[in-house]
Amino acid sequence: MILNPDCIVCSINGTLNLFKKGLLDSKYQEEILRRILEYYSKVDYNQLTISAGKQVKKIIQEVSGVSDPFKPLKDKYNKKAIEYCEKYETSIKNDANPLNKSMRLAIAGNIIDFGPTHDFDVDKKIEEVFKATFPIDDSVELLKEIKKAKSILYLGDNTGEIVFDKLFLEIINHQNVTFAVRHSPVLNDATMEDALFVGIDNVVSKVITNGDNAPGTLLNCVSDEFLDYFNSVDLIISKGQGNFEGLSHITNKNIFFLLTVKCKLIADEIGVEYGDCIVKSALKHKVKNI
Amino acid sequence: MILNPDCIVCSINGTLNLFKKGLLDSKYQEEILRRILEYYSKVDYNQLTISAGKQVKKIIQEVSGVSDPFKPLKDKYNKKAIEYCEKYETSIKNDANPLNKSMRLAIAGNIIDFGPTHDFDVDKKIEEVFKATFPIDDSVELLKEIKKAKSILYLGDNTGEIVFDKLFLEIINHQNVTFAVRHSPVLNDATMEDALFVGIDNVVSKVITNGDNAPGTLLNCVSDEFLDYFNSVDLIISKGQGNFEGLSHITNKNIFFLLTVKCKLIADEIGVEYGDCIVKSALKHKVKNI
Repeated sequence: MILNPDCIVCSINGTLNLFKKGLLDSKYQEEILRRILEYYSKVDYNQLTISAGKQVKKIIQEVSGVSDPFKPLKDKYNKKAIEYCEKYETSIKNDANPLNKSMRLAIAGNIIDFGPTHDFDVDKKIEEVFKATFPIDDSVELLKEIKKAKSILYLGDNTGEIVFDKLFLEIINHQNVTFAVRHSPVLNDATMEDALFVGIDNVVSKVITNGDNAPGTLLNCVSDEFLDYFNSVDLIISKGQGNFEGLSHITNKNIFFLLTVKCKLIADEIGVEYGDCIVKSALKHKVKNI
Repeated sequence: MILNPDCIVCSINGTLNLFKKGLLDSKYQEEILRRILEYYSKVDYNQLTISAGKQVKKIIQEVSGVSDPFKPLKDKYNKKAIEYCEKYETSIKNDANPLNKSMRLAIAGNIIDFGPTHDFDVDKKIEEVFKATFPIDDSVELLKEIKKAKSILYLGDNTGEIVFDKLFLEIINHQNVTFAVRHSPVLNDATMEDALFVGIDNVVSKVITNGDNAPGTLLNCVSDEFLDYFNSVDLIISKGQGNFEGLSHITNKNIFFLLTVKCKLIADEIGVEYGDCIVKSALKHKVKNI
């Protein structure tokens, strides 16, 4: 998605939340806020929002010296997600359609806040996604493509969520899946450390980083290694909104976007409601460049 | 209230809403946004939020040439409020306690959105405020002070709301009330034109402007005439959050603040809930400087 004035407000709010949650020392707040406001006062509007997000992360790191303010939350999210996954694993594996059900759990993982919410809320959200009608649902095509593909690139998104991705990948049980994470920390996005912590390497052929630390996939910033996989695989499964934001304009690759829509602007552009879950084929559903 | 990082976000959001509501031509959005972001990147944090609001209004006017973007809404609010006031007038005048009931209507007027809401919502809100328990309620003292005072200064707030103030003032029926409005347009605040349109001049001794166009009362910016009234009257009735923000630190004047709390930060500082209505004596309830 191209940078919109509302993205600027959202980005500033997100930064202030780091201080409200105690993830950064309040002594840095004024300088970080001033630097971000100055950055956005001069920003090029013709760029992807996640590209601007990268610059904001750089400012936070430069001022505070903290490269990974979300670290405590990320560890907590991974551990909590492991607990929840263990709870649902047996029933999913015994389900009439474990592929579809584990895919839904992986999509639910994209929205669940493993932080201050109660168990009740997490269970409720999972049950909702199990039963939800997706306004864009190319899951039948996706599951066919998975069977057909000789090679798959799976783009991971957030910590916590990747635990549910792991179960989905275990059930997919494909011989040639490469799982990609961010190269270094940004927001609560999963890195190599997280992927190895939750054991993604046990269910895929290889785990790589994308060589970049945008909160999504920016093809002009990723590593050559990542780009080689991206260009050569038969199928790309892209999880979450950040990856969608960076790749939504691509309509000539066999990409399936699995996400919960967590932004009103993106919901409006896709033509779905805020909070909807979608499984969207880039080849089947052409969208305008957002 | 002193400028808080959240006020900056709120101010930017408010500005963007002018474009979303079609009150300003979208061709000005980028320059206005960049100028406001630059202003806030260098802003002095040791000032009142409404003082920063004045600068934002100045930027909007400089870039767009529009001095009163809210004008169409303001006219609509005044007209709508007149309709509602006529509907409630008889029952209030026949009530066992018309002073208290008209005061409550005047406070309800501080929160009602006369814009896109339905009649049902406005009526519901009015009925709620008629019945509400105010967490800070110095209304008995206020009504005593009104009887005792030889001179009253009534600080108006928003368009629409001033129609309900008019009914309250008619029922107060005091011989020496001066009603103050903003000197020139800012947000949807009432100016002299609005006061005369709704006929405030028929129920008070005099209508004056405060000589300033902050969205509240900034004593270091108001006119000498306003300051003379402010310093010499026996009682000041201050309507709304903007006036409260500018005067909340004053604890040695006989001011009564009548408002609906529409900001979480202010609610936290006063120790009430967002959305609560209060009637608060500055002499009785000392508060820290917010």
